[in-house]
Amino acid sequence: MFGVYGAPEAATLTYLGLYALQHRGQEGAGIVSAEDGNLSRFVGVGLVSDVFPKKKIHRLADLKGNMAIGHVRYSTYGSSSLRNVQPLSVDYARGAMAIAHNGNIVNGARLRQELEEQGAIFQSTSDSEVVIHLVARSSGERFCDCVAEALERMVGAYSLLATNGEEVVAARDPRGFRPLWIGRLGDAHIFASETCALDIIDAEWVREIEPGEIVVASSNGLESFKPLTPARPSPCIFEYVYVARPDSVIFGESVDEVRKRLGANLAKQAPVEADLVMAVPDSSNQVALGYAHAANIPFEMGFIRNHYVGRTFIEPDQSIRDFGVKIKLNVSRSTVAGKRIVLVDDSIVRGTTSKKIIKMLRRAGAREIHFRISCPPIIDSCYYGIDTPRRERLIASQMSTEEIRDYLGVDSLVYQTIDGMVEATGRPKEGFCLACFNSEYPTPRPHDFECSPRRRRNNDISNEPE
Amino acid sequence: MFGVYGAPEAATLTYLGLYALQHRGQEGAGIVSAEDGNLSRFVGVGLVSDVFPKKKIHRLADLKGNMAIGHVRYSTYGSSSLRNVQPLSVDYARGAMAIAHNGNIVNGARLRQELEEQGAIFQSTSDSEVVIHLVARSSGERFCDCVAEALERMVGAYSLLATNGEEVVAARDPRGFRPLWIGRLGDAHIFASETCALDIIDAEWVREIEPGEIVVASSNGLESFKPLTPARPSPCIFEYVYVARPDSVIFGESVDEVRKRLGANLAKQAPVEADLVMAVPDSSNQVALGYAHAANIPFEMGFIRNHYVGRTFIEPDQSIRDFGVKIKLNVSRSTVAGKRIVLVDDSIVRGTTSKKIIKMLRRAGAREIHFRISCPPIIDSCYYGIDTPRRERLIASQMSTEEIRDYLGVDSLVYQTIDGMVEATGRPKEGFCLACFNSEYPTPRPHDFECSPRRRRNNDISNEPE
Amino acid sequence: MFGVYGAPEAATLTYLGLYALQHRGQEGAGIVSAEDGNLSRFVGVGLVSDVFPKKKIHRLADLKGNMAIGHVRYSTYGSSSLRNVQPLSVDYARGAMAIAHNGNIVNGARLRQELEEQGAIFQSTSDSEVVIHLVARSSGERFCDCVAEALERMVGAYSLLATNGEEVVAARDPRGFRPLWIGRLGDAHIFASETCALDIIDAEWVREIEPGEIVVASSNGLESFKPLTPARPSPCIFEYVYVARPDSVIFGESVDEVRKRLGANLAKQAPVEADLVMAVPDSSNQVALGYAHAANIPFEMGFIRNHYVGRTFIEPDQSIRDFGVKIKLNVSRSTVAGKRIVLVDDSIVRGTTSKKIIKMLRRAGAREIHFRISCPPIIDSCYYGIDTPRRERLIASQMSTEEIRDYLGVDSLVYQTIDGMVEATGRPKEGFCLACFNSEYPTPRPHDFECSPRRRRNNDISNEPE
Amino acid sequence: MFGVYGAPEAATLTYLGLYALQHRGQEGAGIVSAEDGNLSRFVGVGLVSDVFPKKKIHRLADLKGNMAIGHVRYSTYGSSSLRNVQPLSVDYARGAMAIAHNGNIVNGARLRQELEEQGAIFQSTSDSEVVIHLVARSSGERFCDCVAEALERMVGAYSLLATNGEEVVAARDPRGFRPLWIGRLGDAHIFASETCALDIIDAEWVREIEPGEIVVASSNGLESFKPLTPARPSPCIFEYVYVARPDSVIFGESVDEVRKRLGANLAKQAPVEADLVMAVPDSSNQVALGYAHAANIPFEMGFIRNHYVGRTFIEPDQSIRDFGVKIKLNVSRSTVAGKRIVLVDDSIVRGTTSKKIIKMLRRAGAREIHFRISCPPIIDSCYYGIDTPRRERLIASQMSTEEIRDYLGVDSLVYQTIDGMVEATGRPKEGFCLACFNSEYPTPRPHDFECSPRRRRNNDISNEPE
Repeated sequence: MFGVYGAPEAATLTYLGLYALQHRGQEGAGIVSAEDGNLSRFVGVGLVSDVFPKKKIHRLADLKGNMAIGHVRYSTYGSSSLRNVQPLSVDYARGAMAIAHNGNIVNGARLRQELEEQGAIFQSTSDSEVVIHLVARSSGERFCDCVAEALERMVGAYSLLATNGEEVVAARDPRGFRPLWIGRLGDAHIFASETCALDIIDAEWVREIEPGEIVVASSNGLESFKPLTPARPSPCIFEYVYVARPDSVIFGESVDEVRKRLGANLAKQAPVEADLVMAVPDSSNQVALGYAHAANIPFEMGFIRNHYVGRTFIEPDQSIRDFGVKIKLNVSRSTVAGKRIVLVDDSIVRGTTSKKIIKMLRRAGAREIHFRISCPPIIDSCYYGIDTPRRERLIASQMSTEEIRDYLGVDSLVYQTIDGMVEATGRPKEGFCLACFNSEYPTPRPHDFECSPRRRRNNDISNEPE
Repeated sequence: MFGVYGAPEAATLTYLGLYALQHRGQEGAGIVSAEDGNLSRFVGVGLVSDVFPKKKIHRLADLKGNMAIGHVRYSTYGSSSLRNVQPLSVDYARGAMAIAHNGNIVNGARLRQELEEQGAIFQSTSDSEVVIHLVARSSGERFCDCVAEALERMVGAYSLLATNGEEVVAARDPRGFRPLWIGRLGDAHIFASETCALDIIDAEWVREIEPGEIVVASSNGLESFKPLTPARPSPCIFEYVYVARPDSVIFGESVDEVRKRLGANLAKQAPVEADLVMAVPDSSNQVALGYAHAANIPFEMGFIRNHYVGRTFIEPDQSIRDFGVKIKLNVSRSTVAGKRIVLVDDSIVRGTTSKKIIKMLRRAGAREIHFRISCPPIIDSCYYGIDTPRRERLIASQMSTEEIRDYLGVDSLVYQTIDGMVEATGRPKEGFCLACFNSEYPTPRPHDFECSPRRRRNNDISNEPE
Repeated sequence: MFGVYGAPEAATLTYLGLYALQHRGQEGAGIVSAEDGNLSRFVGVGLVSDVFPKKKIHRLADLKGNMAIGHVRYSTYGSSSLRNVQPLSVDYARGAMAIAHNGNIVNGARLRQELEEQGAIFQSTSDSEVVIHLVARSSGERFCDCVAEALERMVGAYSLLATNGEEVVAARDPRGFRPLWIGRLGDAHIFASETCALDIIDAEWVREIEPGEIVVASSNGLESFKPLTPARPSPCIFEYVYVARPDSVIFGESVDEVRKRLGANLAKQAPVEADLVMAVPDSSNQVALGYAHAANIPFEMGFIRNHYVGRTFIEPDQSIRDFGVKIKLNVSRSTVAGKRIVLVDDSIVRGTTSKKIIKMLRRAGAREIHFRISCPPIIDSCYYGIDTPRRERLIASQMSTEEIRDYLGVDSLVYQTIDGMVEATGRPKEGFCLACFNSEYPTPRPHDFECSPRRRRNNDISNEPE
Repeated sequence: MFGVYGAPEAATLTYLGLYALQHRGQEGAGIVSAEDGNLSRFVGVGLVSDVFPKKKIHRLADLKGNMAIGHVRYSTYGSSSLRNVQPLSVDYARGAMAIAHNGNIVNGARLRQELEEQGAIFQSTSDSEVVIHLVARSSGERFCDCVAEALERMVGAYSLLATNGEEVVAARDPRGFRPLWIGRLGDAHIFASETCALDIIDAEWVREIEPGEIVVASSNGLESFKPLTPARPSPCIFEYVYVARPDSVIFGESVDEVRKRLGANLAKQAPVEADLVMAVPDSSNQVALGYAHAANIPFEMGFIRNHYVGRTFIEPDQSIRDFGVKIKLNVSRSTVAGKRIVLVDDSIVRGTTSKKIIKMLRRAGAREIHFRISCPPIIDSCYYGIDTPRRERLIASQMSTEEIRDYLGVDSLVYQTIDGMVEATGRPKEGFCLACFNSEYPTPRPHDFECSPRRRRNNDISNEPE
């Protein structure tokens, strides 16, 4: 999520910012810019480079205006059709508005039902449309007041950007599940999920928006409000473990440094005699480095990644199976053959990819494999914006660690402890949502909100370029 | 506009029907099918063949269900972006629904403003979204009751198809501006704007829906209602002159026969000594035949049409001008050189194309050109679904017939009279909207409805395959 | 086939010319332009509008130079892959050259084999590559001499354009099977298969190239040579019947006029009492007009053509059959119901399409159908560039006229006589190739040239945009 | 370059192999398969994933047969048009053949001229077409004999695969500039430029083809010949430095290990007091690891690579400059701020990218930057298949090391020595081509072969999907 107020070529800056945030969502991308109160919108399914290929890059010039908000879609709820790609923009009584958000609204279905009962129609399955309806029905004085009034009714995780062509409004939910930064580029105000997106346009890091804070950029400059009912902050610790880019700073800490400390903790907690430490690229690189330095065992790159694959590799045929992993990673035999290896990964979800990777290492002659996981076992679902599978599909909810070790075929398997993980962040345990690790949810869950079942639904058949 | 209730492969039948109705709109096409109350939607900009090219034809199989409604978009209001392509489908309190309509709602902007004042949001500029809001807010018992309640509030021209996955509802406005047929294919009920679309799927012609009638196809069979406040019917006479396909029957008469009588009337009204009668292809062919037979002058094909052009010809360069007409039509010199010609056209709007065509004839050696127009001078705008330009751009609102004759460079120019035109239809004068010819509008006009000016608007930048 | 010497934007003029010649070939299109002796080439499969869609129209600007040759591909020999699209261009000892041709070389396979035995390699299955090899091996002084030397070895039907970036060479084979015109646009020399392509760029018609003549446009102006061994001219009479556009003049006569005389002859030869005369659109329109005028029976348009179909209609499903014809044509019921009809078509090849069309007429209520064919029965294959099927698939080689009448389900069926057809051209019988009607071939046939069978072949899998 | 003999789905295996070899060429990709002596070819411009996108993956099934050869194009000579994409396939006197090669033929232009003087025509500017002509003109008994006869006339660097649908022939030039492996998958014989491509299909590594060796896979099994005039082997040392993937073994050594030794040598040769060692990702990762381990300085990842960029990033606008590097790499500030850094890169060519990278490090707060280069200064052009710019553009041919250090703005700059580089390979100095480092070319250079200048040329305007 990326926003600009007050810069010429705001859409182009947003396009660059979305490139830097691509890791946060690969299913769709969109930009809404504004000029003289008129909004222009361009969205598409797929990566930023799918939505803005060479032959469409000139569309950026059509996105006129000195303010813009942009979004990359990560699907946790709703289909991947074009209708669900954000930002969503509409006309309403006071003109036009556009909204984009990260996260999940746990009472979204309930609010949708209430709105429908009042005659509202829905064209997407995105929660953003719920927010937009609430804003449109608000009688607040300024646009930001209406946004605040809408947010007050929403329970869950959201970082949000909205614009009506006069203001750009940025908000974090009172628990602050997802990150959101304020930056500055000359006279322009920038909003970005992570600092890496400020870096790409050479913007200055100003500060993080606080949980429950609403920040408005307008001709009045930058204003801050705290109109929402406060709650105990509980940022998502999994942002440090997996989601965020290592070169970003979020929730006050460098992701890179937290990951190195996760590795160092693992080394202290589960030492082992070995010839080398290696990572499953790329999200565990920093953890493995931290482990290697702490354990004083050489860090090596035993896997080589094919940089030309991306999301474009298509498995050609039913008869040739399991190329999915091999096409992306290959083992460097000379590095691993005959070696005792500490293999570090960020997390284990289903366990299927880990199994393939370990098999590749064995085939290449690894003598011992000691598997170290930077976070604790994932035992429960996330309702706040991370697409973990249903509980039953989480390997750690179904097997003991010893059973998992056996299933994966490794010599030893050690997970990080919850305390070790929290300690690596340098912040108190109460300061995080740890629900996927300990089933303690900071809010009611979706099924806690009464809602009648839907009987019918309209769906779009995808009409994208193939 | 085409609809099916009760046939397997309803979407495929609709696809074929839309092909036959392509002349009614070339800016977008879409189909919504329904199965078990779930709607599936596929829409795109351009021709039916652009929306369903070879590589996407399999999408028809994704449009499951035994009922479907389809639409080809002809733009008179709202931009050509994907958002405006019909049918529009939404979720609302009672499930899902989809709506498509032809024509224009003259109080559409007024209704939109009222809805917005009640908190409604709009994602398109299409009047269909207004209808959908009104249906969603209705408390009628059945879906068709809700549609009726919505239509009662709408003033203007509409033929409409709607479905909620249980019923397919078809309606004509009380004045019956646009045609709408009921057909039958085995046990299935078919709805189509013109009979040519029934022919393409070998469906039986049952009857035309009457002005103000609502017809519902459901598990109850076919039901008819007349819940709307009646008005004097005023079908659009321009459907006979230009819009409809000659092989269709509408408003009770064969278009083909009406056009031949238009030609015969012209021959009687404006006889001239000539060697041949020829048409500006293709909409005036039947008029020219009627003229030729009545005047006993040979009908000839002096223009040859290039069938490979369609809408795909792109003028390559600024330096090579005016190929637009020549690439589509060429004169057969041997036919026209040295001849006295009666040239027949359906109508004159701006006059610019006529001027080019007449110049081509002169260059090819035509000795005399007597220009005969199948309808009277067009002097005013249409607010009921025909995209005539603003009054000032209509040549007949700016010049006398003699001035136009001089501007076009023809030896004589005769327009049909209003009475002659009406007489050719075989129906009484009171039975038609003649507003573009005589400025007598059957309804208030859009600016007669009070409406505050819009300050802001959201627009989609087109993201179509290019 | 279209060529330009001496005009700026030669490629753009060629693009326009190819549009006008699209009816001569729909499987591929290409242009080679030349500037300072460097050739630039752009080719693609499909229609001109497929090869130069909106997003590629700027490629015309890359085709620099004031000379160009262009081609539309009609497949009679060789696959439709990109490799076979003409013009073909190569580098050889004296620089670069490009060649395009219409027609068929009956000793092409034999020449290819001889060249391969001398070490030549072939990248296409097009005869143009044979010509190019022969030119490259010639020791003639000028480029046009080398072309002449190559052509002297070739037997068959060809109209040809070639350029080496200094000269544009145009040639017709000694029998003159296919047409080729010289035009003039300001100071530029134009070559075109038909006059309709001269018309589209407003070029003056100069004269037709004669059988066996080679015309060279260069800085010397226009030069004419007759270096080839003369033969009795035998232009293809089927050009008048079907191939050429009615607005063209070829072989000295207006196609339009010849077709009207074909119709008039039929009327005299096979009169019948009827209510109307109608054509199977569009190639028989002029024949039907000629018949109607001569028989004094009204000409009517009983079929309405859907102009939006073109080649893009894709039949969606196995279960919905035979839409191929119905999607293109519909019957106007009011015109044909209860009527005695003279139905005119240009020719009958397999008879399958005729059968469908007649069935449509019967369903629409036609009382009598008298089928009149503008040419005699087609009983044998063409080896000169027309893609007639193998002898066994020609209905007239398998059935008597009475059997065909019965098969088609018409009340009467009359073909033109050979003498009637020739008489309509206004030229002597000896002046035409009539082989498909009387099996008298003006040259040896392909199998008369000894040639060893090929065992292996390389093929391109199509890589075109889909 | 990848080849298969004797496996069903040979084309699909080749497709996978090309994916693993994508780093060796990104400008085009193609596959020719063979069945019953018939060749099928599919080629395109761009990456393997551009040539075989989702909608074309079914083309693999059209590439029938149990043998195939494939190629990824790296442009050093000839334009990137479709004509130049390999493998090239042709028909000739004995049937069909296809050829692909890596490297450069230094007497290619001379041979082309000789062939043209004998009447040959050329449709590409690729040296492969020269080879094909020579093979077609050979009178050798078997296909492999003809290939050998052709290769005997060729001077330069080539690893080559060829097939006539009966044999797959693999060859390395007598000096063995480029790598080429033999693998085995069940009963099938595999050929691949590097072992990483054998790994991807789980093929066994058999052995490297020797310099000057020709290996033939056919129904006779695998045969080896050494018909070419021997020369002193001189494999390209730059394959170790930059070209090959680290997980491959080539020229008898693991690339990974050689790179680590290059790093260790640098550490010994140019020690410095520092806080961390980091690489310019990704080709110098192993060198940096080797340096860090030898110097006992922590290895860190100071640059984070954006994995979603690939080749698809398009700079949107003239006004926003220099995003090329920043979009791919970002600095992790917490890692580098205030630190003394050893920055390792594989090589410096022009120096422009290095300058940008160093500027990014400085902006992020790096205190000292000590730049270490894994190879010696590049001072001369390559004529053997690496696309180094012309001598004048090589920074090391224009500036002293001190001048370069100053230009780049680093605290110290040390290049590897030639002896250090060779020593890291574990092989004798005479065993390599070091021409780009010491200007000693193992063969005559292109301009040493007399050749008349070309005056004219034919070029294809690209017709690729955009």
